[in-house]
Amino acid sequence: MIASEQSERAVGRSRAKRVGSQSLGVGLVGFGTIGTGVATVLGRNADLITARLGFPLRLVRIADLDTTRDRGVDLAGIVFDADANALIDDPKVQLVVELIGGTDAARRLILRALERGKPVVTANKALLALHGKEIFEVARRGGVDIAFEASVGGGIPILRSLREGLAANRIESVHGIINGTTNYVLTEMEKGGASFDAVLKRAQELGYAELDPSIDVDGIDAAHKITLLAAMAFGAELTFKEVPTEGIRDVTPLDLEAAQEFGYRVRLLGITKSRRDAKGERIEVRVHPTMIPAESLLAKVDGAMNAIAVHGDAVGPTLFYGAGAGAMPTASAVVADLVELAREVRRGIAGRVAPLSTLPEALVPKPIVPLGELFGRSYLRFTVQDRPGVLSAIAGVLGTHGISIESVSQKGRGYAHPNDPEGARGSVPIVVFTHPASEAAVRSALDAIDQLPEVTAPTRLIRIEEEL
Amino acid sequence: MIASEQSERAVGRSRAKRVGSQSLGVGLVGFGTIGTGVATVLGRNADLITARLGFPLRLVRIADLDTTRDRGVDLAGIVFDADANALIDDPKVQLVVELIGGTDAARRLILRALERGKPVVTANKALLALHGKEIFEVARRGGVDIAFEASVGGGIPILRSLREGLAANRIESVHGIINGTTNYVLTEMEKGGASFDAVLKRAQELGYAELDPSIDVDGIDAAHKITLLAAMAFGAELTFKEVPTEGIRDVTPLDLEAAQEFGYRVRLLGITKSRRDAKGERIEVRVHPTMIPAESLLAKVDGAMNAIAVHGDAVGPTLFYGAGAGAMPTASAVVADLVELAREVRRGIAGRVAPLSTLPEALVPKPIVPLGELFGRSYLRFTVQDRPGVLSAIAGVLGTHGISIESVSQKGRGYAHPNDPEGARGSVPIVVFTHPASEAAVRSALDAIDQLPEVTAPTRLIRIEEEL
Repeated sequence: MIASEQSERAVGRSRAKRVGSQSLGVGLVGFGTIGTGVATVLGRNADLITARLGFPLRLVRIADLDTTRDRGVDLAGIVFDADANALIDDPKVQLVVELIGGTDAARRLILRALERGKPVVTANKALLALHGKEIFEVARRGGVDIAFEASVGGGIPILRSLREGLAANRIESVHGIINGTTNYVLTEMEKGGASFDAVLKRAQELGYAELDPSIDVDGIDAAHKITLLAAMAFGAELTFKEVPTEGIRDVTPLDLEAAQEFGYRVRLLGITKSRRDAKGERIEVRVHPTMIPAESLLAKVDGAMNAIAVHGDAVGPTLFYGAGAGAMPTASAVVADLVELAREVRRGIAGRVAPLSTLPEALVPKPIVPLGELFGRSYLRFTVQDRPGVLSAIAGVLGTHGISIESVSQKGRGYAHPNDPEGARGSVPIVVFTHPASEAAVRSALDAIDQLPEVTAPTRLIRIEEEL
Repeated sequence: MIASEQSERAVGRSRAKRVGSQSLGVGLVGFGTIGTGVATVLGRNADLITARLGFPLRLVRIADLDTTRDRGVDLAGIVFDADANALIDDPKVQLVVELIGGTDAARRLILRALERGKPVVTANKALLALHGKEIFEVARRGGVDIAFEASVGGGIPILRSLREGLAANRIESVHGIINGTTNYVLTEMEKGGASFDAVLKRAQELGYAELDPSIDVDGIDAAHKITLLAAMAFGAELTFKEVPTEGIRDVTPLDLEAAQEFGYRVRLLGITKSRRDAKGERIEVRVHPTMIPAESLLAKVDGAMNAIAVHGDAVGPTLFYGAGAGAMPTASAVVADLVELAREVRRGIAGRVAPLSTLPEALVPKPIVPLGELFGRSYLRFTVQDRPGVLSAIAGVLGTHGISIESVSQKGRGYAHPNDPEGARGSVPIVVFTHPASEAAVRSALDAIDQLPEVTAPTRLIRIEEEL
């Protein structure tokens, strides 16, 4: 051991002795569902947290525009008003939790806290996917930490696991069910054969889906999350705006049935992979409905649960499963971050681990592989008039584009799936599983096929991921 | 922010600036399979590790009794001899990795390193389950860290997740497939209907099982690991010697068939739960073959893979899946620990997180719930002479002990499972699933039943865990 390290350790030790049982003050901005969960966990598990941390974490102040609604939380001794700025500036608040969501006010509040040297915990994936670079840079320059475990996978400690638990690995791929609403809808459609619209309506009535469901069902939330995962897995800069994103609105019960018949299930996945080829080192990042082997663990993740499969060069395949949303699971992640940051604050240290795993100076932009360069098997659902020769015409076009058919399934004359609107209009579906082909070739074949007079609706493509 | 914290942060910041790119030296004691994996990962992923850590981790010295065998690792610049003590004392070695296994020499080496202020990474679950208390105490007093992620679940970052990712939770239960050999054997028995002995022999030939398989198949390895998990989950002191442990030698193909027939699968689980009742706060800790719902994720974990299901009061159910053994997955965990400890060494800090999650001063012995107080459904396999009235006699004894039968399955006259030794001797099996009952009552009924003249072999009990 070199002398300077020895003296550093001595400093560390003497500091450790000064760590007393004095509590650290937490300020909570946003007292909605998750904020209520955070207050509940901090209260209910205060004894355990103190036994793990060495001193109490105390919720001292809350800011929310709605100061009247009763959240069922004991607010004795807690300042509660609508002034988020005053909360941040309050000397009793040493750690700030941002749970208001959105990207404008949340960004301003987080920057204000960081500039005042107060570490921040947030669950705001949209904000980080869009403005993460700026926020992480302000934090770094100020020597103050920002933690965001709750932003991906709810209560699943996936970011910590990627950043620390798997730190020895060259990550090869991440496949995540990272949006509970869409997984719930797809699972319900699978079970009951009901249409997307019918299941979504029921999910909204039950509170599993928002009244404006777009951010979930169109894949935007999953795209925010896979952006963060890709940055963390591959040391790439955040690239949310470039992430090809497709939601689940066009998935029909027939697609789910066909998937099951051929040994697959359909899940909305966020996917990111590294690729090294003649064009250098690039990454795939995308969100879309995906057929995955029915025997894979990911295919068994039902309802609103989340799971993230990570493949590393040393560890091989791993999977992290848990509740991806909800007040208490999300609070579990927020409070874990508070515990971690509290340790650092007490030691007067920041920047232990880079927020995106790779140190900022080593982060590099990595080009995203265009969808046309993907190579794999596809599921194609054609909607056609029920006439002789249609299948032959389609197969012909696929063949001239070099795409060979692995299996085909044509429903008989008069077939109409009860919940398939096209079927109701007298068309019939033809379902094709292709052998591996480039997506550019498939897209070009589909462009030609969709011009055929017998084809009555745009062909649907669902990508197949085998290696799960 | 109080003034002293501000000055502490300033100290932290100025120290951070002093962190240079100078490498940190790693010494590896034990150059077998896993040691080779560690050397490989440190070499192959050196660029990534440096990009995450800010400076290189460099393997500078290796000690192993066998200094001649070629491990296929480039040893240029690495001192390699058989002198572990000299390695520990070498000033170029700043972090020590112990991978020799066993509990005597390993204990001495680890204590020597800790006493010299050198942090230690180990994968040695047996040592920690038996001598963890002493080792952690020496580390704490010396202000030096010991990390052991690789000791449970191989490459799965389960200890980090319990200790940090789920730090906000009151843990309710942990159910783990934490021994790959036994999971491989049970999976192969399920697939092929072969007997334990036949599958074990094949596993030994393939290198999946040791020539002396006892530590695996008798559940001892799993008991070491559940001891660590229980201590970490519940802030209990280590209690390896008190863990009721039962292996898989007595599991027959018939048991696996019956399980599947009734919607279960059999897995060797390490289980630990907290229990609060009139007798105060106690914990369950045990290792035994367990029937679990076939639809649970844990039941889908096949072959040599591991998975740990953790239930927390805030997060709800979670599951962590990956390779539980093997050179590279284990090296993934060892090197992740090295990365973590390297950060601390560079900052002159130790003791960031307590090794068992709860601070040593808050650890308390928690009584273990005796098996007799377990309450649940059981699978019972009776081996009886094929005569009228036997089932009635058995049911009678169960009834007088207050145990009601949920379902019973009696194979017809002359039934003999091809791989069931008892069947080959002319006896027939009766399989019973009970309604929930206390294990004391069941054991007492079985004692009486096993005295019946028609019962030709000891009755087998397999516990059922429903909540997975």
